[in-house]
Amino acid sequence: MISSRCLQTSCAASVKARWFHTSAVRREIRSIDELPARVYPNFKETSRHDLLALKWPSPPRNILFVRKDNDKSAQEALLEYINHVKSAYPDTNLLFEPHVAQELHEAFDFPLYTLDREAGRTPYHEKVDLTSTLGGDGTILHAASLFATAKSVPPVLSFSMGTLGFLGEWKFAEYKRAFREVFVSGAPSPLPGEDTDEAAVSDGGAGPTSASGWANMRGKTMGSSRNSRILMRNRLRIGLYNPSGQRLPHEPPFAHADNKCEDIFALNEVLLHRGALPHLVHITILIGSPPHQRTLTTAIADGFLVSTPTGSTAYSLSSGGSIVHPLVSSLLLTPICPRSLSFRPLVLPANTPITLRIDEINRGKEAEVSVDGVRRKEGLKAGMEVRVVGEEVRTAGAPGARHWMGGVPSIVRSGGVADGEDHWVGGLNSLLKFNYPFGEDG
Amino acid sequence: MISSRCLQTSCAASVKARWFHTSAVRREIRSIDELPARVYPNFKETSRHDLLALKWPSPPRNILFVRKDNDKSAQEALLEYINHVKSAYPDTNLLFEPHVAQELHEAFDFPLYTLDREAGRTPYHEKVDLTSTLGGDGTILHAASLFATAKSVPPVLSFSMGTLGFLGEWKFAEYKRAFREVFVSGAPSPLPGEDTDEAAVSDGGAGPTSASGWANMRGKTMGSSRNSRILMRNRLRIGLYNPSGQRLPHEPPFAHADNKCEDIFALNEVLLHRGALPHLVHITILIGSPPHQRTLTTAIADGFLVSTPTGSTAYSLSSGGSIVHPLVSSLLLTPICPRSLSFRPLVLPANTPITLRIDEINRGKEAEVSVDGVRRKEGLKAGMEVRVVGEEVRTAGAPGARHWMGGVPSIVRSGGVADGEDHWVGGLNSLLKFNYPFGEDG
Amino acid sequence: MISSRCLQTSCAASVKARWFHTSAVRREIRSIDELPARVYPNFKETSRHDLLALKWPSPPRNILFVRKDNDKSAQEALLEYINHVKSAYPDTNLLFEPHVAQELHEAFDFPLYTLDREAGRTPYHEKVDLTSTLGGDGTILHAASLFATAKSVPPVLSFSMGTLGFLGEWKFAEYKRAFREVFVSGAPSPLPGEDTDEAAVSDGGAGPTSASGWANMRGKTMGSSRNSRILMRNRLRIGLYNPSGQRLPHEPPFAHADNKCEDIFALNEVLLHRGALPHLVHITILIGSPPHQRTLTTAIADGFLVSTPTGSTAYSLSSGGSIVHPLVSSLLLTPICPRSLSFRPLVLPANTPITLRIDEINRGKEAEVSVDGVRRKEGLKAGMEVRVVGEEVRTAGAPGARHWMGGVPSIVRSGGVADGEDHWVGGLNSLLKFNYPFGEDG
Amino acid sequence: MISSRCLQTSCAASVKARWFHTSAVRREIRSIDELPARVYPNFKETSRHDLLALKWPSPPRNILFVRKDNDKSAQEALLEYINHVKSAYPDTNLLFEPHVAQELHEAFDFPLYTLDREAGRTPYHEKVDLTSTLGGDGTILHAASLFATAKSVPPVLSFSMGTLGFLGEWKFAEYKRAFREVFVSGAPSPLPGEDTDEAAVSDGGAGPTSASGWANMRGKTMGSSRNSRILMRNRLRIGLYNPSGQRLPHEPPFAHADNKCEDIFALNEVLLHRGALPHLVHITILIGSPPHQRTLTTAIADGFLVSTPTGSTAYSLSSGGSIVHPLVSSLLLTPICPRSLSFRPLVLPANTPITLRIDEINRGKEAEVSVDGVRRKEGLKAGMEVRVVGEEVRTAGAPGARHWMGGVPSIVRSGGVADGEDHWVGGLNSLLKFNYPFGEDG
Repeated sequence: MISSRCLQTSCAASVKARWFHTSAVRREIRSIDELPARVYPNFKETSRHDLLALKWPSPPRNILFVRKDNDKSAQEALLEYINHVKSAYPDTNLLFEPHVAQELHEAFDFPLYTLDREAGRTPYHEKVDLTSTLGGDGTILHAASLFATAKSVPPVLSFSMGTLGFLGEWKFAEYKRAFREVFVSGAPSPLPGEDTDEAAVSDGGAGPTSASGWANMRGKTMGSSRNSRILMRNRLRIGLYNPSGQRLPHEPPFAHADNKCEDIFALNEVLLHRGALPHLVHITILIGSPPHQRTLTTAIADGFLVSTPTGSTAYSLSSGGSIVHPLVSSLLLTPICPRSLSFRPLVLPANTPITLRIDEINRGKEAEVSVDGVRRKEGLKAGMEVRVVGEEVRTAGAPGARHWMGGVPSIVRSGGVADGEDHWVGGLNSLLKFNYPFGEDG
Repeated sequence: MISSRCLQTSCAASVKARWFHTSAVRREIRSIDELPARVYPNFKETSRHDLLALKWPSPPRNILFVRKDNDKSAQEALLEYINHVKSAYPDTNLLFEPHVAQELHEAFDFPLYTLDREAGRTPYHEKVDLTSTLGGDGTILHAASLFATAKSVPPVLSFSMGTLGFLGEWKFAEYKRAFREVFVSGAPSPLPGEDTDEAAVSDGGAGPTSASGWANMRGKTMGSSRNSRILMRNRLRIGLYNPSGQRLPHEPPFAHADNKCEDIFALNEVLLHRGALPHLVHITILIGSPPHQRTLTTAIADGFLVSTPTGSTAYSLSSGGSIVHPLVSSLLLTPICPRSLSFRPLVLPANTPITLRIDEINRGKEAEVSVDGVRRKEGLKAGMEVRVVGEEVRTAGAPGARHWMGGVPSIVRSGGVADGEDHWVGGLNSLLKFNYPFGEDG
Repeated sequence: MISSRCLQTSCAASVKARWFHTSAVRREIRSIDELPARVYPNFKETSRHDLLALKWPSPPRNILFVRKDNDKSAQEALLEYINHVKSAYPDTNLLFEPHVAQELHEAFDFPLYTLDREAGRTPYHEKVDLTSTLGGDGTILHAASLFATAKSVPPVLSFSMGTLGFLGEWKFAEYKRAFREVFVSGAPSPLPGEDTDEAAVSDGGAGPTSASGWANMRGKTMGSSRNSRILMRNRLRIGLYNPSGQRLPHEPPFAHADNKCEDIFALNEVLLHRGALPHLVHITILIGSPPHQRTLTTAIADGFLVSTPTGSTAYSLSSGGSIVHPLVSSLLLTPICPRSLSFRPLVLPANTPITLRIDEINRGKEAEVSVDGVRRKEGLKAGMEVRVVGEEVRTAGAPGARHWMGGVPSIVRSGGVADGEDHWVGGLNSLLKFNYPFGEDG
Repeated sequence: MISSRCLQTSCAASVKARWFHTSAVRREIRSIDELPARVYPNFKETSRHDLLALKWPSPPRNILFVRKDNDKSAQEALLEYINHVKSAYPDTNLLFEPHVAQELHEAFDFPLYTLDREAGRTPYHEKVDLTSTLGGDGTILHAASLFATAKSVPPVLSFSMGTLGFLGEWKFAEYKRAFREVFVSGAPSPLPGEDTDEAAVSDGGAGPTSASGWANMRGKTMGSSRNSRILMRNRLRIGLYNPSGQRLPHEPPFAHADNKCEDIFALNEVLLHRGALPHLVHITILIGSPPHQRTLTTAIADGFLVSTPTGSTAYSLSSGGSIVHPLVSSLLLTPICPRSLSFRPLVLPANTPITLRIDEINRGKEAEVSVDGVRRKEGLKAGMEVRVVGEEVRTAGAPGARHWMGGVPSIVRSGGVADGEDHWVGGLNSLLKFNYPFGEDG
């Protein structure tokens, strides 16, 4: 499917693109309806730490690439990355957001697939096996938002174009090793091209995971690591309600198909804010579910945040919230400029139902609601509610087809030191310049 | 064992005490060696919320009373409480701290038991079935510290003499209902004196929990609630180490029997502090266990706290920490007056091993270490370490004798509203004056 | 000019209004052009504290009343207050904002004057001797904004309808005493109706301040206090500039006559904010004036505030700023949700020129600018600047006609205790619930 | 008085010290009684900014050197510095703290003078013309503490051995230029060795400031700057009182001669702290002087600070205080770990009398009191008070001998940019790592 010449060279994609003029057919954008159904991975607990091990039952085939827009280095990296993946893993299918597919498809002699909701009959949530991002935190957040209505999010492999942050990104220079590590994660040994001495120990392909699935993979083995480490990031489950308790629809990009009024999911936070209004909003915060719901307090503030631990190093941090490790199952309640000296950020159990109700006193004013940084055009009026709870991570489905639901499986960089906390401690120190001391002893 | 006259009156203990002059024998303090062995309760998960249900296999017999010292109202309440318990539950044995037993024993015609470590051969940890406190947060903390070397802490029933706080206290005026509710928690119905129509439904005493155990209880039934609600508060497990990695002994009241150098447990926090020294301490914070231990940061500060969520409303709050709900399984790292603009409090998973190492740069200086507000006389020198991790809550013991270990089972007040969050939300609002708004709209 | 019957009764204005149907002439709204020119008071330093003493050269005549809108109690109080002032001080002229004059004029048999800018040829800044407010902090702020383009603001006498705050308000119940105290402040003794024994000591009317000016005042003397205490509140002087350094116009209510592009003045703060945009704004903060201007830092934040000490208990407090006493000559720089762990609020000398420049990186985005809570409709684009400095308080004018300029002369309530700090300490404790302790010793 | 060979070489002092073995007489430590009386400088206001210009009436002669102890680079720098000063300014006399004089005197062939209080009859406060420090902030603080009982502090010229901080330090590499600039500050031109063309313009030595005083200065002119810039740092004036209102003595190094119980002065802050006690201290804060004194609040806390703006970047900053520019005339009140959610740091006018009273509730406990980081051995008991007010800066003395009193005249580094705010903005950014942004846009 791809010219062997391509394998022999590592020249830049922009040059390579000029080589192929023959087959216009291949420079096309195709519908995801043609793609094979999604491969759902398993996540195994590991003995040493709280990260999970990624186990593919068969190799991932449908790879979604999400790229930071208007960024030259991200664009160049993407071209190089695409060429590598398609040549070394010829069975993969490459998916893009529509505007990216439009930009790129002329450059390649193989078809690109697009997430365009209008185009396909099958939701892309049921097609994407793996998402890979190139950019920064914002790009990862955007990739997660593409699955804001999905209960099962494919694993995310992220590359940073600059500073490594909290989200377990890899340096782009490591992309070949990183992709291979993810691609073979959970595969039985030996893989094609690996030392055959170990072949006898192989399980003979009897199990659901058989090395044969990985047969068409090219290139030399880059290490024996068979288990990508997964940090399962909990999300918020968010519903909007009118004063009579009826659900309100979400807006794109968070809208469900058929405009169904169901909950959506956020990776970082949901924000209520006065927006451009000069007046503070009055928000009553209730915890628990009826009939055991109880008023926690009424916040009079510029705004109010409910965050995940992942979001604790984003907006919540700017608003004075604590830094919460992503493995602490919790929700953060953080006010923005409260009219109170005595509002301290709160950390609640992840399974606490939290309701933010726009007080009647706000009558005539609208509070803006934003999910992961995307503002809903229509604000919330007095009496309306945002209901939030931590998303439950669990398995679901019929026996034999069980797969996990909930959470964003984030593939965490495996460094030289085999340490699960690596990226988080690193993010604290390099990204936040945490605890930089002042003064001197003299 | 107690005069029936006593049942007919509710006169104050101080008056009643004068009635009995006959038997000097009974006004004695006895050794706990005579007491029956401890009754270990079970804790059952409940469907509706995250509190547990207390299940006694047989009625608790050995009750420890802990009282706020130098407080007239606590003292008077204790006398009234003792008389009630002994008369309504004649099979109970009453235990006290030695100095309290000395003060009280003349006033009663039944023997008191004392925790005096010297006196008994059996550690009181293996005798006390239930602890009941009268006082404030400090008294509960002190009661917990009596079990700082115990892996299994008896349930704690707390009465507040004033404001209700975070710790689930009951008002003292409710003491009869509260004690009965705890005493019968998990008992099969009907209990003696209850409507016999239901007797047929009883399980006939075949199971481990038989109503017969509660036969000798007097007084009328005060409600059908059979399940005291338990908030299992996680503790810190704390070890002290010298620079060569050898354990250092703890000091009383946290010393183990035979001066064994084992871990101790804290309900609120462990503190490292410069104490009276003018110089800041340098503390290196490491997370994880070797060989995966990793330096988080070096804090240059007046001090440094590792707290439980229970401790998040104590010293950590004064130092700027967030308020963390006790059901969030986590540890808080909070600096005290750090020499840094960029130290924000951290919340880590409860199972994260944390090491606080006194930096070599402190040579010659000693950092003070305090556990739950009690300072160790001997400070920590350069190179020494405090190693902390959240205590694991689990069951242990041989089959048939399994009991839970870890945590302080705190009996939470059941209010008119059957709401699990009651005491915490109440504590926020009444005790902390949380989110008191300023200004006005005008 | 007013019926003597009115003097004999204290009936509510709403009732009294029905009495007069005869003279339509009197129920009119008149132009301020007819009013006598403004009386500029002096402010004398006092020995004991840092408050000033108000000295009228002749009695104030043109009184501006500013009222909280949509508030029944403020409205009723205003009617009662107006009737009292007009009857006890018949030489006074009563001014109102246009919408208030429209609402009220039918109720009175004397003419009301209005600030309507269109109506008069003389700016009301040159007519108003004294402003009196009924409402809360917001009403005082609004009254100050009516003089946002004036270099010399008349003294402000404020009545609170509820809680007394930081701004030196009087309780409305004290209005008769308060108004008289202000009215006679600096007048020589004795005043008409006072004990004539002291008359000989009078200065005979030779000086600029003569008792005769107060001859037409009615009612009994209410105390010997002749000196209203003034807290001179410093304001911010604010200019807006385009990237070429040319001034931008302000918008109503802060627009100068003829749309002149001059500086305006703020009592509380100037705010730059991202408004409804999801993106943070980049604001470069420079201090000093060219050629000695110097970059302090670039704030990446939701917004940024420059406040007066008076504003330190308003928005700045919500954003984490310190509480600065109004007599500390200073400016506060406070970020709103900065993307930094290490931005601590700054307090600079009041005479420090501060420039907030919308960074070029914001290209395409507009930052909103608000002055004392009023948002400018047109935002600021990349390269534009807000230039701020503390307003200088000084005297100006030709000899013989010198008057002070700068500051808002706030008449501070004189309590039972003759203490200059009364209102500020009171505001801290009653309004902010400052330093409410938590926990207990138990 | 010093070998001319010394002028020709810049060899290290440690080497040079070996050259002189001849005159044991000169390697002595002499009493300051022999020194000429102190030269009091004037400080002139300047047009451009708020810094003052230093004007010596005649050259400074008695120079005090204060060095960081136990620091090799400070020691080596001091030796080089001493040799330069003595050779280029042969009329100067060099003073040291006793322990430094003991260490150094053998190394020099000229006498050293010592501050030893026992040795001299004249207080060194009446001898020292100029203090120069080598070290960090702590060394400057220590130098200031040597004048903690003096009402008039000599100018301080500070050299940093490392990072430049808030205190206007010079880099040590600049020491020759810096010392000369200070030495000639305010001298008429031309100085000896300067271009004689301008000599005719000289004022002929008639005035109090005559160039002739600078005649014996060697070395070439290093620039025409004649005016060292002075930042006059305000201090705290501190008195300790027992419950009956009688003064308590201060302890060394803050003790007055003859143990007089007078106020002392602090450059940074006064601290009350619980020290090693586990219990919080209750401190009642009163402002104003009797009879107008008024309770501000009662702080229940680990401690409480009253700081100068200079101290705002020291301990107060660690405790959450704002950063206050040294030219803002103010006092900061900052609690340490208060048991309150609603204690926000306060900034009061510098002339506000503040009383910190140890509450009666602390009976039996002692609060520790520290001044500029030096702890008083004897703590304060219940009822005792610390009374603090900002030191007034003024002139005093008979006509013809007037000199300023109050403040620490800090010589501020003059950089390439003639900017008065240089060191403060620089300190913010380089020392505090102020406003280091986190995250990225991507």
